Amino acid sequence: MSSPPTFDDLFRVNFAELLRWRRDVRAFRSDPLSEDVLGRLLAQAARAPSVGNSQPSRFVIVRSAERRRALLAHVEAEQVAAGVEYDAERRSAYSRLKLHGLAECPVVIAVFCDPDPSEGAGLGRKTMPEALVYSTVCAIHTMWLAARAEGIGLGWVSILQPATVTELLDVPQHWHFIGLLCLGYPKYEDDLPLLHRKGWQAQLTVEAMVIER
Amino acid sequence: MSSPPTFDDLFRVNFAELLRWRRDVRAFRSDPLSEDVLGRLLAQAARAPSVGNSQPSRFVIVRSAERRRALLAHVEAEQVAAGVEYDAERRSAYSRLKLHGLAECPVVIAVFCDPDPSEGAGLGRKTMPEALVYSTVCAIHTMWLAARAEGIGLGWVSILQPATVTELLDVPQHWHFIGLLCLGYPKYEDDLPLLHRKGWQAQLTVEAMVIER
Repeated sequence: MSSPPTFDDLFRVNFAELLRWRRDVRAFRSDPLSEDVLGRLLAQAARAPSVGNSQPSRFVIVRSAERRRALLAHVEAEQVAAGVEYDAERRSAYSRLKLHGLAECPVVIAVFCDPDPSEGAGLGRKTMPEALVYSTVCAIHTMWLAARAEGIGLGWVSILQPATVTELLDVPQHWHFIGLLCLGYPKYEDDLPLLHRKGWQAQLTVEAMVIER
Repeated sequence: MSSPPTFDDLFRVNFAELLRWRRDVRAFRSDPLSEDVLGRLLAQAARAPSVGNSQPSRFVIVRSAERRRALLAHVEAEQVAAGVEYDAERRSAYSRLKLHGLAECPVVIAVFCDPDPSEGAGLGRKTMPEALVYSTVCAIHTMWLAARAEGIGLGWVSILQPATVTELLDVPQHWHFIGLLCLGYPKYEDDLPLLHRKGWQAQLTVEAMVIER
């Protein structure tokens, strides 16, 4: 074991900025991500916490142009279907939102959770098996922050049918789909969520999210 | 909008160290956390990504000593019950693991997800409503990293029955319980997961978690 790091005020200020400027990125420049950078982001994601250290996350890098086209077509169809239920005013706002950068981002990764990983020997997931899935979410969030620290944007696409994505990517049927990620250099940066800036809704204060017992 | 930050190599090195030294902390010193620090951690958690910016996380700070005792008794009972199914050798190793610091940590927070938040207007969660829960997991992970940056440890307890915790804490019945968190200054620091150091299992390489399609 090496000696524990201490983090200073400057690091904490920068870390707070990282959180403040992390966005769900949906508009990407065409510059490629190097394999080096991609490998580094995956390695950092692999350090994320996992229940009983079960390490259940599985990252599928989508290299095939044909598979990317099929994913894009699926997400666009689901996006239209999801808009139908809004009233006229919301639907008009919805149709103007850019919800993903799947068509142009240089890297697409689908993230799954192995629901029965051999690591961890079941520890901590008897009463809450869903903690496995939560572990994979932590891995995605780790990659998100690590990406932003390198000036790279990540967008998490969830307007899709998990079963369709699982089939399109030909991964083990028992894997649990968690999220489809777009990665690349962002077209612009912002310290406000797009949905806030576009008037979709407001930001809650932290007080609205905390109670005491 | 202020101008976007750029993160330098030193920040990235420190951020990688933060990931490497973040642990699931189960042994706490008795020093209290100041309300300032706690407020700061909650405010950072509130900046976590959420699907359609729905901000569904609800943090319940457990102040009542009686409620804390009841939570501890519940978790200890579930911990014993979860050990019964292991074979003799695993059970012996299991009984020696310290799985939580609920008895001694200065702050306990139960985290829930509001499954029907008004913010976000349903965006992005029609096909994957579970994305709401994933948002709350991102908030917990944000708090975890922000805590570590202040030298504070967090332990996520999942050996419990969500319905029991919901009842013990008298929160709205429809809230979805996600995790019980212990916070405080750690007794020691480590760059290896406890379960790895104690020989419970090994660490996977990132290559074991990545495939291409």
